[in-house]
Amino acid sequence: MREIRQPEGAYCYTFGPHHEPIATVEPGETVIVHTVDAFGDLLVDEGQRPSEILGPYLNPQTGPIYVEGAEPGDTLAVTIVDIEPVRDNAVSCTVPFFGGLTATPYTAMLHEPLEERVWIYHRQPDGSYRYRDRWSIPWRPFFGTFGVSPHIESISSLTPASHGGNMDVPDVTVGNTVLLPVRVPGALFFVGDAHANQGEGELCGVALEIAARGTLRFDLIKGKRIDWPRIENAEKLMVIGSAKPMEDAARIAYRELIAWLVEDYGFDPLDAYQLLTQAGELYVANMVDPNYSLVAGIRKDFLNW
Amino acid sequence: MREIRQPEGAYCYTFGPHHEPIATVEPGETVIVHTVDAFGDLLVDEGQRPSEILGPYLNPQTGPIYVEGAEPGDTLAVTIVDIEPVRDNAVSCTVPFFGGLTATPYTAMLHEPLEERVWIYHRQPDGSYRYRDRWSIPWRPFFGTFGVSPHIESISSLTPASHGGNMDVPDVTVGNTVLLPVRVPGALFFVGDAHANQGEGELCGVALEIAARGTLRFDLIKGKRIDWPRIENAEKLMVIGSAKPMEDAARIAYRELIAWLVEDYGFDPLDAYQLLTQAGELYVANMVDPNYSLVAGIRKDFLNW
Amino acid sequence: MREIRQPEGAYCYTFGPHHEPIATVEPGETVIVHTVDAFGDLLVDEGQRPSEILGPYLNPQTGPIYVEGAEPGDTLAVTIVDIEPVRDNAVSCTVPFFGGLTATPYTAMLHEPLEERVWIYHRQPDGSYRYRDRWSIPWRPFFGTFGVSPHIESISSLTPASHGGNMDVPDVTVGNTVLLPVRVPGALFFVGDAHANQGEGELCGVALEIAARGTLRFDLIKGKRIDWPRIENAEKLMVIGSAKPMEDAARIAYRELIAWLVEDYGFDPLDAYQLLTQAGELYVANMVDPNYSLVAGIRKDFLNW
Amino acid sequence: MREIRQPEGAYCYTFGPHHEPIATVEPGETVIVHTVDAFGDLLVDEGQRPSEILGPYLNPQTGPIYVEGAEPGDTLAVTIVDIEPVRDNAVSCTVPFFGGLTATPYTAMLHEPLEERVWIYHRQPDGSYRYRDRWSIPWRPFFGTFGVSPHIESISSLTPASHGGNMDVPDVTVGNTVLLPVRVPGALFFVGDAHANQGEGELCGVALEIAARGTLRFDLIKGKRIDWPRIENAEKLMVIGSAKPMEDAARIAYRELIAWLVEDYGFDPLDAYQLLTQAGELYVANMVDPNYSLVAGIRKDFLNW
Repeated sequence: MREIRQPEGAYCYTFGPHHEPIATVEPGETVIVHTVDAFGDLLVDEGQRPSEILGPYLNPQTGPIYVEGAEPGDTLAVTIVDIEPVRDNAVSCTVPFFGGLTATPYTAMLHEPLEERVWIYHRQPDGSYRYRDRWSIPWRPFFGTFGVSPHIESISSLTPASHGGNMDVPDVTVGNTVLLPVRVPGALFFVGDAHANQGEGELCGVALEIAARGTLRFDLIKGKRIDWPRIENAEKLMVIGSAKPMEDAARIAYRELIAWLVEDYGFDPLDAYQLLTQAGELYVANMVDPNYSLVAGIRKDFLNW
Repeated sequence: MREIRQPEGAYCYTFGPHHEPIATVEPGETVIVHTVDAFGDLLVDEGQRPSEILGPYLNPQTGPIYVEGAEPGDTLAVTIVDIEPVRDNAVSCTVPFFGGLTATPYTAMLHEPLEERVWIYHRQPDGSYRYRDRWSIPWRPFFGTFGVSPHIESISSLTPASHGGNMDVPDVTVGNTVLLPVRVPGALFFVGDAHANQGEGELCGVALEIAARGTLRFDLIKGKRIDWPRIENAEKLMVIGSAKPMEDAARIAYRELIAWLVEDYGFDPLDAYQLLTQAGELYVANMVDPNYSLVAGIRKDFLNW
Repeated sequence: MREIRQPEGAYCYTFGPHHEPIATVEPGETVIVHTVDAFGDLLVDEGQRPSEILGPYLNPQTGPIYVEGAEPGDTLAVTIVDIEPVRDNAVSCTVPFFGGLTATPYTAMLHEPLEERVWIYHRQPDGSYRYRDRWSIPWRPFFGTFGVSPHIESISSLTPASHGGNMDVPDVTVGNTVLLPVRVPGALFFVGDAHANQGEGELCGVALEIAARGTLRFDLIKGKRIDWPRIENAEKLMVIGSAKPMEDAARIAYRELIAWLVEDYGFDPLDAYQLLTQAGELYVANMVDPNYSLVAGIRKDFLNW
Repeated sequence: MREIRQPEGAYCYTFGPHHEPIATVEPGETVIVHTVDAFGDLLVDEGQRPSEILGPYLNPQTGPIYVEGAEPGDTLAVTIVDIEPVRDNAVSCTVPFFGGLTATPYTAMLHEPLEERVWIYHRQPDGSYRYRDRWSIPWRPFFGTFGVSPHIESISSLTPASHGGNMDVPDVTVGNTVLLPVRVPGALFFVGDAHANQGEGELCGVALEIAARGTLRFDLIKGKRIDWPRIENAEKLMVIGSAKPMEDAARIAYRELIAWLVEDYGFDPLDAYQLLTQAGELYVANMVDPNYSLVAGIRKDFLNW
């Protein structure tokens, strides 16, 4: 299978229309894409201090990948066939003024930063990741950052928004199809920030960061317009909303899920509102990025009548 | 078993220290408590308009129940042994300027209210609740409102906060123990707002509202002080944070869960922060009340080392 | 003139219907009301540590004052005729986990508290308050906490909401009339928390706290219902919204100001929306209390046509 | 004086590094810059419907202007010498799902949009703008959008952030100097969105929109790094914070103003925190854009000791 690597390590730190495509894929094609971790694979030792090691930009992306025939107003469907680790450890850390329980440049305060610390996890024969003799986290890999180019903006790879980006959604995983709104010719797909696993909220801001090989199939839904990223699998429909304050992310996710039920499942809007009240699911994917991401979902067996 | 009913239907609409106890229980005692639904059982027909039927106050509570020996600084542990429906239908509706996807008195706007509509669900032999020939919701009952008196405040039964109250948390359910901070002598426990089921977020603001009989066991943990409601069962620890904006509810829940791991499981705070980053769970219970409620949790098998 | 003092120093720490009135006034009557400062006059020395000195409750209120003839659905109009200091200094301080640029129990984080410090200001012959040889703050006194009882709730004197309370609005000052929604018989008026002055936002959470004598005239507007506190003087109309997140406080304030222009000045709602877009004023009164308070205003000379 | 116009009307809709400069200025140079209004001068009649007239992008900017010698880490100081209108009317309107008291794509709801309406104001001999025989708004012009390029991002001209942009701050006006953080060589300055006047908050989202000629002087402070836009004049220091929720914009503005007092006025951080508590000013510039903008200020006469 064709393997796509970033040429000369010139990774992208924005999602935008100004990058030269590194590869072109046909609708229906499956390829393997290589990604480095969110720290460009620089953080490898518990004795390091992230603030001394890391450069001005984080979260390098592989891409953009040009999808033949994609036009604004289409939907790009990317199915995640497989994710494999390409090294035997995973890294997490605290970064000064970044995370869910610290002051940040936006939630600006007068506190000193929290202590910097690095946690190295080692891959076990069963695929889990062990931190010392303390705890093990099962292998449940996904891509934290995943999306397409906005129309005219170039958005930092740290920020999630309606184009996708740094959503940190555990359901962007093997077996699921992620639907993305095409806004420029060729869609210009970017991917990176693979995680061996992550809790809901990504509390300290840094998951189990790994370099990875992802096997991705690209399909195109011509003439189908969506406004926010969606995820579909055999059991569920999901929508990802990204915004601040967090309630706006929740509103976006559920509002767009209602639109999905209305357009594709014949619901009246108030009936969709009612059904999601009783059977909807809503979890926090990240509470740490420049926008928070929440995922609203519904099991498909509620929709068949 | 002793059955506790509100005398003469004089339900409480605040959680506070000024109500006369309706019963006293001993630590270790199990009782049955009867609750009416959030609309005082007045909404029974799809032809009704909620704004014409309902009085100035919603969400009548049964209580307060005085727990012998409870003192400020203790923790009250209420285990939910059983919840049974006492009628064969459940009701939901839209209420003007109340809900997750509408302007409200707080998120004040110039829009007209959304359409008022009532949905009546009928209990099926398998326990599920069916809306017409459209959809069925499984029986997964819980108490939407559950808590104790604040020290000096009296808080509307529509509002969740650190005393508990209208949290709308599906995990306040059979088999779980809810831990509440005792702030007045006798704790003064209130309960109501039973739901046959509810989605995460309680999107339109009204779940599958039912009248119910709850079987509750009351225990006391003397000298144990907690700041926010907690839930424990064999598999998990959970904390409920209630605040606005929603990110503050998330911060509270995870911050207090870290405190739990530090106090009772010997964690260093940063290690707890790290573990919850990789293995924590965080869902939205309600996105409609005067405070939003989020639930942060961790499976216990991550804690045993 | 009649002087009203809290009997035996039994100050109130909630706004609610359960306190016994300390005095009754007639509509049209003017009285003098004595208030202690937000720390109960306990903080007097820069060597003190607030966390060691202060008790469990802050912000003691004088009241409730029963207004003869006030009924739910009326509006209470309290005109501030004068505010005089009753001692020659003012105090401010930092309090652990309280303030605008610190983690709080709600914006919960893992930081240590900021340093505790006390600033004592001395009254100068020109009425200004001087801090050492560093800076002087002019005398521009107002009551930080001012309001009436809610209908059934009892709300902490630290919290501002639709009943008034701890709004920390500099325009609650001499020459202005504050309009409050009557929700219980007699209105039950409370006042306290006088400030010699305060910046917009009350950044560290503690203004120039003083004990004071206020001269207040009480009037009643029978049958006039308002939903949030309003302020009127010869030049301006103002509305105070209190909520979180802060944008909800802004929405409430402007939404209610539009209602005022529609009801009393004959505006079409969209025209009021337009005029306030071009000529409205909107400042932050507090960014530190359990709800934030914002003040929306319009000069009256825009309304006369 | 040199006059700068956008060549061939090819206005910019992003603040970013990918636009070709339209002019180069020397530090110390004063030039005249022509701007069209936020609707590209297309909205001219009260019978128009904005949703039918306007294209996919709003808020066209003049620029970028390259400032000779500007390097990342410098501060660009732009003094507004004059603003003149270039036509005799101003326009405002409601735009579907845009504004302070409406659902938006972010605060997503199920409501229908508010009514679209256009208000045309006519310039009077005294410079004020009159709407029919209803009201007149005085001439107090400023640039709603004003800023420099981010380092790698390209940000919509509708969004304010740390680079400046669509802040809608009335103090970006004649006689004031706006300080901006240089992040790319030449700074790449953009300007547009002139307003004849605007209320605080820009409530409906559309001020008194005009085409204008601005007289601007460009200066460079080499080696001075700032993180957010600042404004200075003879009487005041001000900082603009832009974020959501609104409290984060307030925190940023006051946090950065403390930094200013510490760096340039010799304050201890806690003393600056204290002084701003008593004498700071904090108003809402916009409550309608993708980020809200708040302005924190202090009069200089408090700083001289």
